[in-house]
Amino acid sequence: MTDGQHNGNQQQSNHHAAPRPSPNNDVKADTKGITVKKNDDIAEWYGQVVAKAELADYSSLRGFIVLRPNGYLIWERIQNELNPKITKIGVRNAYFPLLIPESFFKKEAEHAEGFSPEVAWIEKHPDDPERYAIRPTSETIMYDSYSRWVRSWRDLPLRINQWCSVVRWETKDTKMFIRAREFLWQEGHCVYETERECHKETMKYLEFYRQVAEELLAVPVILGKKTDNDKFAGAKATYAIESLMPDGKSLQMGTSHDLGQGFAKSFGISFLGKDGTTQTPWQNSWGFSTRLIGAMVMTHSDDKGLVLPPRLAKNKIAIVPIIFDDTKAQTIAKAKEIQKLLKRYDPVLDDREGYSAGWKYNDHELHGVPLRIELGPKDIAKEQVVLVRRDTGEKKFVPNAQILDEVRHALDAMQANLFEKAKAFLQSSTTEASEWNAFIAGIDGKKLVLAPHCSGAECEAEIKEVTKGVTTRCIPFKGDKPAAGAVCIRCGQKAKYNVYFGRAY
Amino acid sequence: MTDGQHNGNQQQSNHHAAPRPSPNNDVKADTKGITVKKNDDIAEWYGQVVAKAELADYSSLRGFIVLRPNGYLIWERIQNELNPKITKIGVRNAYFPLLIPESFFKKEAEHAEGFSPEVAWIEKHPDDPERYAIRPTSETIMYDSYSRWVRSWRDLPLRINQWCSVVRWETKDTKMFIRAREFLWQEGHCVYETERECHKETMKYLEFYRQVAEELLAVPVILGKKTDNDKFAGAKATYAIESLMPDGKSLQMGTSHDLGQGFAKSFGISFLGKDGTTQTPWQNSWGFSTRLIGAMVMTHSDDKGLVLPPRLAKNKIAIVPIIFDDTKAQTIAKAKEIQKLLKRYDPVLDDREGYSAGWKYNDHELHGVPLRIELGPKDIAKEQVVLVRRDTGEKKFVPNAQILDEVRHALDAMQANLFEKAKAFLQSSTTEASEWNAFIAGIDGKKLVLAPHCSGAECEAEIKEVTKGVTTRCIPFKGDKPAAGAVCIRCGQKAKYNVYFGRAY
Repeated sequence: MTDGQHNGNQQQSNHHAAPRPSPNNDVKADTKGITVKKNDDIAEWYGQVVAKAELADYSSLRGFIVLRPNGYLIWERIQNELNPKITKIGVRNAYFPLLIPESFFKKEAEHAEGFSPEVAWIEKHPDDPERYAIRPTSETIMYDSYSRWVRSWRDLPLRINQWCSVVRWETKDTKMFIRAREFLWQEGHCVYETERECHKETMKYLEFYRQVAEELLAVPVILGKKTDNDKFAGAKATYAIESLMPDGKSLQMGTSHDLGQGFAKSFGISFLGKDGTTQTPWQNSWGFSTRLIGAMVMTHSDDKGLVLPPRLAKNKIAIVPIIFDDTKAQTIAKAKEIQKLLKRYDPVLDDREGYSAGWKYNDHELHGVPLRIELGPKDIAKEQVVLVRRDTGEKKFVPNAQILDEVRHALDAMQANLFEKAKAFLQSSTTEASEWNAFIAGIDGKKLVLAPHCSGAECEAEIKEVTKGVTTRCIPFKGDKPAAGAVCIRCGQKAKYNVYFGRAY
Repeated sequence: MTDGQHNGNQQQSNHHAAPRPSPNNDVKADTKGITVKKNDDIAEWYGQVVAKAELADYSSLRGFIVLRPNGYLIWERIQNELNPKITKIGVRNAYFPLLIPESFFKKEAEHAEGFSPEVAWIEKHPDDPERYAIRPTSETIMYDSYSRWVRSWRDLPLRINQWCSVVRWETKDTKMFIRAREFLWQEGHCVYETERECHKETMKYLEFYRQVAEELLAVPVILGKKTDNDKFAGAKATYAIESLMPDGKSLQMGTSHDLGQGFAKSFGISFLGKDGTTQTPWQNSWGFSTRLIGAMVMTHSDDKGLVLPPRLAKNKIAIVPIIFDDTKAQTIAKAKEIQKLLKRYDPVLDDREGYSAGWKYNDHELHGVPLRIELGPKDIAKEQVVLVRRDTGEKKFVPNAQILDEVRHALDAMQANLFEKAKAFLQSSTTEASEWNAFIAGIDGKKLVLAPHCSGAECEAEIKEVTKGVTTRCIPFKGDKPAAGAVCIRCGQKAKYNVYFGRAY
């Protein structure tokens, strides 16, 4: 950059710049910038990015957060990505009651046990003998209805999804989007005639989750199966997408459960088969949550604030006119023209009064807008604009005639770059170990470690205890077979599978 | 209709026709048709339409219903109608906690009193001194956040909406969509610098509600102001859209509250004004719920089942090929061609095996599909289809070349017809009265009665008592001024305004 107007006449574009004082001592903008570096204190940095980009905020209720409009918009974008995929294969959205009778939980013993510590109960009403919980998940309340709706093979497959909030009374500290006592999610619940069809679609939903994570959020994931010890309460098998955060912590980003016939038997779901006999159907359930937003923030954002992958961002461009008193009208007019040209990318034209161009640059960087277009009188004279990429900071003079092409190219390149960078990190942060010292070295190096394991629940628990928190993440779909004669990384017994170990939030 | 194939060779199209027996004694379809007439028993008829069109179902929890996919889809269509309207004027969606601390309710005395009988409380956790309620509405939890977010005039107007469920522990009987202990709604909550701006937008949201009701749902409404006795707990004034159901009962379909400065003062929301002084802002809140679906069902549906206004229906057409063994392939191929031609209307091609064409006609009528296209080998030979309108039952032979035009015309005509019919009913069911006998005659005639009133809360209560349930509905925007010298319909004191009286659900 050598063009004086973009860093000279205007206030400097360093990201801790204070706002130009507004006429009436407006104090709002004073604490805008991120005051800690991602590498120095990732927890504090993350909290600041989420809060200052106005994605979410703590509420006055311990453990509960508010999804502010910027954060909720991201959730809507994620909804708009998943909904067409599931609709296309026949899933339909619905809404089931918020409250679940205690007696329903008790119908599936493992399920009840798995959720009991986290359930919030409603005070009993004198006129009602039943005790109700706020849903921590909806298998039981939904399958009670399913038992009345499913009659014949003609009613199957039954595929229903709901977008709602769930409450799980966490006792750990709240981390916005990652862990809270209430979060938004979707939960899909399907019923099939055959085990084969059920399993096939269980995998299909997992593949949709991979697509949303990798193609929309640009967060690469590992696909695998949870160990029996770690599967969903009541499921036959749980499959998951797992990501690795920049601090080496593993994050489960979505799960798809093959429920087998357990819930169907507990809730009395049966159907008249094509052969005229009464049969028990097969079920799956699958969910992801606003935790996806947390993973996306943590993966891509930087010391200047939020970085949004272009496909995820609604407003993909911020247009900042550089205003001088004598050329103001002309500059705004040209900016509006460019806004119109780029309409398909929902550009924001930032003509706010009382703020310098430099302050605006910082503000849009903080909020993660993928591209910035700077435009001053000298640019207008030269029939060009300055195009700045949020991820690399790269600036480019672009002739007016090439704006559309260059913007399209920059958005595509940024989407790809974010994913590739994250993928390179994931690859360099996964390793294999066949004996304990190498295992510990990998873990201490903040890596995901693929290691042979005996499959014993006690052995898993022992590893967690001696390492102060290392858990199995998933048995990957690729590389799950242990080498011939391989033994368990901890107990030395015959290995049943290779499984990823890591620390999680 | 004289063409034999549409009522001869195939099973008769009377709407109680049993399904053609399926190979395996499938019993699902046996109880399909509506077994009671709208005019004979509207409550039973309504329950059957909602249940048999699979819009909603009772759950096992008393007072809680399930929104089934067909019902939830209607809700999504309503969301997609309102969202662009409010987004355009700057409202943004967000999500606030499900639970509200008891202490928050207590901050606004009238509000706390208004909601206290209906609130569901969470069992206290030993580690938490606070008692929490499930939100019956979110003013308090949202304005607690607003008090931290609003600092300066630059932060205003602040316009936030959330789509969520609320719980109100009703003791009256549940009526699906009309009254339940949990329902889905949207609640908008805005903050303004000036009273004038606040009032103007309070009216704007009410106008949006009118548009959704009349233009999407084809349900005509009366706009007006609630009496002081009947306004929202904590509001300065409540404005509403009111509709009249076919049984003469009045239904409040949406409200917009001018909150004044009461909540702002209670929750400590203030801002630094342009003049440098600290000021208290003005607020409104506005909401409508899934009750809209109930009003739409009750207004338009008939003895054959659901009738969906074309703009509301996602699948606007059902294409039913009339199948004979020897012409099956050709008929299905032609039906697919027409499906493709009409793609913009999301037509459903019903090629289900094991059901007669007549049974399918009934099934799509029951589910409210606006248009039906029947297509058999004789039609193919004549290069025509049969087009049937759901509202009037009118059948028309349409040459293939005119299908697109005729479909477009029929959809427009049906949307207009449903609204006009409902509007004529509303007009013929509203009357005026200036003395008690005429008032009672109007009420007994199941009408909405516009009458002068003194504005006294005790007088309102007395009217409700002596009539066993007649309440004020709204002071209409047009015709609210009493005639010179007019006296209260009940107590004979000087009339303050004309107000609509009626019975409500």
